[in-house]
Amino acid sequence: MEIAGYRLDIEAAVATVKQQGYKTVAVQVPEGLKHSIVPLVEYLEKQTGARILLSADPCFGACDVVNYELRNMDVECVIHLGHTPMAAVENFWMPTIFVNAFSTADASPVVEKAIPVLVGTRVGVVTTAQHLHTLDTVEALLQKHGLEPLRAEGDERVSSQGQILGCNFSAGTSIADKVDCFLFIGSGMFHPVGLAMSTRKQVIAADPYTNTVKKKEIEEMGDALLRQRYGAITVSRSAQRFGILIGSKRGQQRITLAYELKQMLDEAHKHSVLMVMDEFSPVFLQGFREIDCYVSTACPRIAIDDYLQYKKPILTPIELEIVLGRREWESYVFDEISP
Amino acid sequence: MEIAGYRLDIEAAVATVKQQGYKTVAVQVPEGLKHSIVPLVEYLEKQTGARILLSADPCFGACDVVNYELRNMDVECVIHLGHTPMAAVENFWMPTIFVNAFSTADASPVVEKAIPVLVGTRVGVVTTAQHLHTLDTVEALLQKHGLEPLRAEGDERVSSQGQILGCNFSAGTSIADKVDCFLFIGSGMFHPVGLAMSTRKQVIAADPYTNTVKKKEIEEMGDALLRQRYGAITVSRSAQRFGILIGSKRGQQRITLAYELKQMLDEAHKHSVLMVMDEFSPVFLQGFREIDCYVSTACPRIAIDDYLQYKKPILTPIELEIVLGRREWESYVFDEISP
Repeated sequence: MEIAGYRLDIEAAVATVKQQGYKTVAVQVPEGLKHSIVPLVEYLEKQTGARILLSADPCFGACDVVNYELRNMDVECVIHLGHTPMAAVENFWMPTIFVNAFSTADASPVVEKAIPVLVGTRVGVVTTAQHLHTLDTVEALLQKHGLEPLRAEGDERVSSQGQILGCNFSAGTSIADKVDCFLFIGSGMFHPVGLAMSTRKQVIAADPYTNTVKKKEIEEMGDALLRQRYGAITVSRSAQRFGILIGSKRGQQRITLAYELKQMLDEAHKHSVLMVMDEFSPVFLQGFREIDCYVSTACPRIAIDDYLQYKKPILTPIELEIVLGRREWESYVFDEISP
Repeated sequence: MEIAGYRLDIEAAVATVKQQGYKTVAVQVPEGLKHSIVPLVEYLEKQTGARILLSADPCFGACDVVNYELRNMDVECVIHLGHTPMAAVENFWMPTIFVNAFSTADASPVVEKAIPVLVGTRVGVVTTAQHLHTLDTVEALLQKHGLEPLRAEGDERVSSQGQILGCNFSAGTSIADKVDCFLFIGSGMFHPVGLAMSTRKQVIAADPYTNTVKKKEIEEMGDALLRQRYGAITVSRSAQRFGILIGSKRGQQRITLAYELKQMLDEAHKHSVLMVMDEFSPVFLQGFREIDCYVSTACPRIAIDDYLQYKKPILTPIELEIVLGRREWESYVFDEISP
């Protein structure tokens, strides 16, 4: 069915629910689909006869599958909308059906617009889940213009060739030395800026929703971000007590990394506290007045995107290495979560 | 040990952790203790040799014990600070040690101050977890002034005689017909106002922290609250699509009640969607533009305390009954969670 400009193969999920005879099913929905979700819930109810529990908590990725908390509610299955499965994240409490939301926006016009500003001839093609189905068309267009598109497999955290996540650019980094530039299909600045910083290649972003192409803005934002991160690193050098943040969401748990960071801080004679959090919130960290600086091992976007909302500096693990003198600023890279 | 004006028997928790040989322990802390928690974490680390994971998520009661989400982190035990256990909430994933935080504030001066404004001679004595240890002294003081204190067992949701919770006034309601008034020891308006509305008795609040006594303010706030609730009920009568909110926190799950409300709404030919939420947030409900009105089966304080933060009316289950004509406004009562 189609909702809010997205095509979702909810019919396949209905078939599975009926076949398995599930009586209570949870549905998880990304923020962008919340405003139009009721018809889908009612459709599921009618078609399956199952009781549908709509999860209202925020959900920003397949790293965040609602699961254990539903254990006492007789929920037998989760339908997770809008993200592709992460093979690397396993051991769910109950079966999870991933239903991607494919944008109905036509990518061709904006790709045509982007072609003149591409750099060189070998173009790495990347996108997010909702435009994955457009990549064949995008590549054909590039080829028509005499360009050589390249699309790579990512690691186990991504589901398809050419797919990048806010926390994982492996489908880009793996071909960085084979391409002249990257063409990113999608909206928002985080993915293209992150990709540029991870690959040190120029990234041109083509947004099928707004029909706009961005190139210079990405470089500028990358530069601004680096300055901000440099500032965060600088102010953190005097911190004495660190909070090491561990995300409890299934696909954001980097507990071994957190232990390694604690070890590093111990060796540098800095105090540290391991802190677990589900929903990261500046408000609820504010209470910990004794902590001078946070290091986040959870979603890399927390330190980068939400930096200004926090009253204390919040670093990525890589940035902590720089603070502690274990890495040079020159080898700064974006934090990513590997499988 | 003592932190921030509270005495916590953390030594007993240390003994249990050592005896059981737990290697990884989570600590949960209420908002009011976050600012001084680091010495306690360091003490636990040193005394037990265990790895301590401090939960940074908000925690407003024993209804909210961090548990399943720690399953993949090798956590063997949770130390839950500042609340008393709820016998009614069972089946934790792992052992949970409850460590109450007893206020070191002396209740006697403010009780002396409250005695002249008490009504009648039979005085129901109630308080919250952090002042439970003062009740013997309070009762002795009342007796010294020729008054007759009464203290009752609550139901299975509370741990001690005379204890009330924001969601449970059973230690008051069970003796409402035997007392002339209630004396509440503690701070904040929610508990005394809720108790007054549940028992229809005068409540005098004595706050050991600020040494202030409140009586008229409680009545006035009760009246203002009733007007606000009447308003919420009135605007909800025209709602066509209801969101029935279910809390996924262990002690806030009233799933059967949620199903009953859905049934009621079905019979009244109103649309409804069952919605599960862990951390209730006006921000993350805002996306659901198709919902006209919410009914919360989670913590009763969400509808009452946070009402003005939500852009849509949010009702208690009892208020929905009034909206649907199943209950008279005259028999309005506060929403409580029974065992």
